[in-house]
Amino acid sequence: MWNHPSEAGSRALDLSTAVLDRQLEQIADQLATRFTGVFSPATVRRYVGESFDMLASRSRVRRFLPSLTASFATERLTALAKAEGRTHGTVSEVLFVCVRNAGRSQIAAGFLSQLAGDRVLVRSAGSLPVALVDPNVVAAMDEVGVFLGAAYPKPLTDEIVRAADVVVTMGCGDACPVYAGKRYLDWPIEDPEGKSLMEVRRIRDQIQRQVQDLVAELFVKL
Amino acid sequence: MWNHPSEAGSRALDLSTAVLDRQLEQIADQLATRFTGVFSPATVRRYVGESFDMLASRSRVRRFLPSLTASFATERLTALAKAEGRTHGTVSEVLFVCVRNAGRSQIAAGFLSQLAGDRVLVRSAGSLPVALVDPNVVAAMDEVGVFLGAAYPKPLTDEIVRAADVVVTMGCGDACPVYAGKRYLDWPIEDPEGKSLMEVRRIRDQIQRQVQDLVAELFVKL
Repeated sequence: MWNHPSEAGSRALDLSTAVLDRQLEQIADQLATRFTGVFSPATVRRYVGESFDMLASRSRVRRFLPSLTASFATERLTALAKAEGRTHGTVSEVLFVCVRNAGRSQIAAGFLSQLAGDRVLVRSAGSLPVALVDPNVVAAMDEVGVFLGAAYPKPLTDEIVRAADVVVTMGCGDACPVYAGKRYLDWPIEDPEGKSLMEVRRIRDQIQRQVQDLVAELFVKL
Repeated sequence: MWNHPSEAGSRALDLSTAVLDRQLEQIADQLATRFTGVFSPATVRRYVGESFDMLASRSRVRRFLPSLTASFATERLTALAKAEGRTHGTVSEVLFVCVRNAGRSQIAAGFLSQLAGDRVLVRSAGSLPVALVDPNVVAAMDEVGVFLGAAYPKPLTDEIVRAADVVVTMGCGDACPVYAGKRYLDWPIEDPEGKSLMEVRRIRDQIQRQVQDLVAELFVKL
């Protein structure tokens, strides 16, 4: 039924392949309903399978892999629909990219969501995503009212880049494909990986100032 | 600066009142920016303080209390803006209410978000909310691709009810205030509290069918 190129994924989950197949099947069915008239069930199914493989290959143990697969597939299909002009969405999309999607890009995405609300669609990704968001990053963001407890690192995929109006990179070099018609920004921000909570707070505040400047630019009046 | 009628909240957090005050201050500042032109800083500040008290009084220990306070205050202010006609939002809002906001209403909200995407604004609340969503509920929803790992029980507040177009109650009796012009539904669903994972799955599937019927009614074509 489903390809499992990353056998590590299902082994790590301690789930039989049959149970996992049934879960992915049900997720694909539900998303096919949601995207009726936008994508065929076959396309939805392919994105669910690919999204699972991408997330499963990152980590040996991961809680919530089925539901994170559904979230990631939903995000990718929504971005694809926008990139291909299949939706009438008019809200700007901002994509933050760093290496691990565990620190800088999650911090920036959290601040922009907090400040801009539904006036902008915020996404983040990593060129080499790791398994979990840094605990110190989650703690430092909690202190300033941004909940990252549900955030998960995810790879940079083509449709997410294509759907973005603004792409902000932090330390990922030229891993991000460049498309015409977008605005690209590169922010020189240190990686919080392995840093103390005090140091992470400093990085957090630096990113917050950058996001505030971006918001002031994006919205004439806020 | 901030009232702390529930001293238990700050003690449980193991934070000095000064640190907590500073965090709430910063959260209020950020939300005041976000709601510029909609609400005064004083209103935003009052909602942040109240929201903190409501969440802090529920539990002795709670991770992420500052960021959950910010999320809850944001949700309430957004609902208030809609209820008072201060926004031009046209998306329908559906509110699910049960007793603890830890099982039935979270399951229903999760399914509706999954199926309807951004075509509807989904909220949930409890008449007597507890500290955490049931672990078996989170596990059972993960299996079908709905991530509830970030969901948190929250009390039923007036502006959330006023902003709703459809209110679905499950087992909370007449705790939900009734306003004219809304559609009220009552679903007879068993409480999953203390039930085994197998039993929770059965309740989950029952709620899923109810949500599917609701979606079919709300959207002519899906």
